[in-house]
Amino acid sequence: MENIKERTLSVLVDNSAGVLTRISGLFSRRGYNIKSLAVGETEREGVSRMTVIVSCDDRALSQIVAQLQKQECVRRVRVLENANQISRELLLIKVSTNAQNRTQVIEIANIFRARVIDASPGSLTLELTGEADKSAALFEMLGEFGILESTRTGAVAVERGSGTIYDE
Amino acid sequence: MENIKERTLSVLVDNSAGVLTRISGLFSRRGYNIKSLAVGETEREGVSRMTVIVSCDDRALSQIVAQLQKQECVRRVRVLENANQISRELLLIKVSTNAQNRTQVIEIANIFRARVIDASPGSLTLELTGEADKSAALFEMLGEFGILESTRTGAVAVERGSGTIYDE
Repeated sequence: MENIKERTLSVLVDNSAGVLTRISGLFSRRGYNIKSLAVGETEREGVSRMTVIVSCDDRALSQIVAQLQKQECVRRVRVLENANQISRELLLIKVSTNAQNRTQVIEIANIFRARVIDASPGSLTLELTGEADKSAALFEMLGEFGILESTRTGAVAVERGSGTIYDE
Repeated sequence: MENIKERTLSVLVDNSAGVLTRISGLFSRRGYNIKSLAVGETEREGVSRMTVIVSCDDRALSQIVAQLQKQECVRRVRVLENANQISRELLLIKVSTNAQNRTQVIEIANIFRARVIDASPGSLTLELTGEADKSAALFEMLGEFGILESTRTGAVAVERGSGTIYDE
């Protein structure tokens, strides 16, 4: 009766030193495979929000949630349903370009609604937001030009509509 | 002779279980205040890239770099100069709206080049990329409508021009 799939957890935590180490340690000690992690401040002073994507079955998910809720630094845990969430990650990608192929790279950027955020004689740097599969598709399209470097955030997510993590 | 300011570290690490815990623990154990952290996969299989922003002086920076380089999972460490980097974070923000004020919120989104990624009768969800101060300005503009929830990534950064983290 296994049901292993990607689960998105949104966790409100106190924004204090060592919280990230504690939370990430909780996952790694138990051998749960974190696929993506993002952490940042919220609109509430002293409160950060972590988005963790983890591949696990229903039973492991319940255990993870229970473990998180036991932590003193954790204020709230919410499991976002895949069908009812909006998820985004941010990718910066630096592509090797020259006067001959720059236009092609810009055209690809436009197709993906990526923005050019830096240009030099030998490179263009693009910024892309979207779900992880969109980043993968852009990588594939730009591969022929030569990807000089790239860096991306983990995914952040909220539920669709006006419901929030603060709802009971 | 203190020179405390924000430093941006780009760290290439092996994408294996427990790496995040190890790296974040290295900072928290020594009491270094991480302002922002982002981690994600790169264009190279098995290699992730972490961006860490930390407030410290020159001496602490040298110690942090040395400690990172001692870690088996760390392949490369680069300190990005503030004047020579492009830094971006991603913010999702859900704003309380109604038929009367929705247009005002969309106008503010346009000013900030934020994208509307979800709408409901009672809310709009916006996606914004930029430096941290841009997020702060958007928060300020939207505060009067009521911010229902928000979540953001840490910052990712690359150096300007065609130089990369892989350069010697």
